[in-house]
Amino acid sequence: MERKHLDGCLVTNRVDQYYLTGFDGEDGAALVLPHRAYLITDGRFAEEAAIHAPWARAVIRTGPLAEAVGKTVRRHRLGRVGLDPAHTSVSMQATLRKACRPSRLASAPRILEQMRIVKDPSEVAAIVRAAEIAQAAFRTVVRRIRIGMTERELATALLLEMLRRGASDASFPIIVAEGPASSLPHARAGDRKIRAGSAVLIDWGATVDHYRSDLTRVVFVRRIPPRFRRMYQNVLAAQAAGIEAVRPGAAFSQVDAQARGVLRRRGMHKAFSHGLGHGLGLDIHEAPRLARSSEGVLEPGMVVTVEPGVYFPGVGGVRIEDDVLVTDNGCRVLTDLPKELDRMVV
Amino acid sequence: MERKHLDGCLVTNRVDQYYLTGFDGEDGAALVLPHRAYLITDGRFAEEAAIHAPWARAVIRTGPLAEAVGKTVRRHRLGRVGLDPAHTSVSMQATLRKACRPSRLASAPRILEQMRIVKDPSEVAAIVRAAEIAQAAFRTVVRRIRIGMTERELATALLLEMLRRGASDASFPIIVAEGPASSLPHARAGDRKIRAGSAVLIDWGATVDHYRSDLTRVVFVRRIPPRFRRMYQNVLAAQAAGIEAVRPGAAFSQVDAQARGVLRRRGMHKAFSHGLGHGLGLDIHEAPRLARSSEGVLEPGMVVTVEPGVYFPGVGGVRIEDDVLVTDNGCRVLTDLPKELDRMVV
Repeated sequence: MERKHLDGCLVTNRVDQYYLTGFDGEDGAALVLPHRAYLITDGRFAEEAAIHAPWARAVIRTGPLAEAVGKTVRRHRLGRVGLDPAHTSVSMQATLRKACRPSRLASAPRILEQMRIVKDPSEVAAIVRAAEIAQAAFRTVVRRIRIGMTERELATALLLEMLRRGASDASFPIIVAEGPASSLPHARAGDRKIRAGSAVLIDWGATVDHYRSDLTRVVFVRRIPPRFRRMYQNVLAAQAAGIEAVRPGAAFSQVDAQARGVLRRRGMHKAFSHGLGHGLGLDIHEAPRLARSSEGVLEPGMVVTVEPGVYFPGVGGVRIEDDVLVTDNGCRVLTDLPKELDRMVV
Repeated sequence: MERKHLDGCLVTNRVDQYYLTGFDGEDGAALVLPHRAYLITDGRFAEEAAIHAPWARAVIRTGPLAEAVGKTVRRHRLGRVGLDPAHTSVSMQATLRKACRPSRLASAPRILEQMRIVKDPSEVAAIVRAAEIAQAAFRTVVRRIRIGMTERELATALLLEMLRRGASDASFPIIVAEGPASSLPHARAGDRKIRAGSAVLIDWGATVDHYRSDLTRVVFVRRIPPRFRRMYQNVLAAQAAGIEAVRPGAAFSQVDAQARGVLRRRGMHKAFSHGLGHGLGLDIHEAPRLARSSEGVLEPGMVVTVEPGVYFPGVGGVRIEDDVLVTDNGCRVLTDLPKELDRMVV
């Protein structure tokens, strides 16, 4: 705040607010001042705010949120209050601006995103727990794959096993895509039945203590379809190159380029239609992005997915995804489910 | 668009985009012109866009979203393009504005919200299916409530039973709050164990074909705690009055006032700390709001929750919630789980 000449910072994004205060109410705004913080919420969350953020002063609004924010801002005669333009809607900004007068709202882009990008050890520990639960559930469920089972049944079983192990939720809607459906990088689980000789792409993760994991594996039912053999080996090689490139100081775009280069040399880069990976933590997609156009370099404590994929409409797709922590000297892969081609037959 | 002198409308909100096009991709924008529609998305969703919105022209971007939008807008030499300020972030608006020049972006507040507020029969049918699945799951799970079971176990069982019956997901994180925890209107399910003689508040719903249901029931384990008897009867009476008030032409605030009045006459209105209800459909909370400060009147085809509640910190809370369709002559309650006090003992 000092560097940006701000007298305070207003945080309206729910996840940012949880990050700052420990309070995860559906309604609320946090106003952070140099020596004090306010949580502005409504009556439904009054007790929760007191329990989860006892050190913050709770302001229980009865009127609109903006009015309560404005009143608090004006009471402190704040000159400039920062607001993240990426997490504030145009109408919310207009309403807040009016309510906070004569205090001014200043654009403070990505201020929380930049704080959240490097994880502290307790955050890494939560991501590791989320990864372990996702992996344990997968190991259990993959043994129960049967011909004729639907994608949805498999997804439900995976979710249930994660919940049983202490996940509060899946970290996003689980993708189970059988056969040609696997060529849709973001297919959901549907009524398609699992057939012998088909590839099943599974992209899933767990939310544990608010933190998330994110993995993808492709399994082959009974046997490996011939066309998938080369796709799989290429993606696996690209992923290895991507992980190899993860270290402090490496440019985000360079990590992407390392993996993409492997697919290019093998003539499959045109089928790799998305970025290599993304940060994960309280959100399933957060900074940094590992992509061609992404600017910045990796630092110790960042956690990213490395997930190259190739997709051929009508045929199918392969994606392999692991979660990787940037360490002082290189990286540590937080997920360790098998991924060698011959071990993927179920 | 005509009424607002717009040459086109740009829809960036995912749910609105699904409503308009049937395409539910994580990345995308829909540009709606009088006689044509574009879906602008990235390579990951190309195939999905073609499958789910074959009549829309797909624009597969390789650069940033705003650039691809701008190119399409400029190609049509559009004068004014509408954008919903409630669903556009400040930074997205700035980027789009630059990319669309010389076309101008005009504020088109709540244009989709107003379209979505009245449901057509197929939407009502989906909400009814979502309600039926939520109710069937509840009936199964409530019989399995045992002393010593945790809130989380109960929530997981409920989720699983909804998924088994064809829900794609819960419609929001299920709330199971035992004993005093029920005084937090938005508690989650935790490790608290269900005890004899306690109240358990359950707030849950299913998502089916993208549409959502939302119910709340309070059950009493073995016996009704004396302090809850009056709370329950008051809330039940308030809910009956609220439902009674749901009819075409009734002001949103008036429906709230009817229910609130019952609690006032019984001296419990101060414990009713939230609005009476909200619209539901593709989103779990959407227009209209039934609350004191809400402006507008009910119309046939609107679907709202009616959910008064009273909360006493340290003691507990009671909320009773059903989903109600406004019909031509009055209303139809879409949910029909028992709620008479004596039937709530499990």
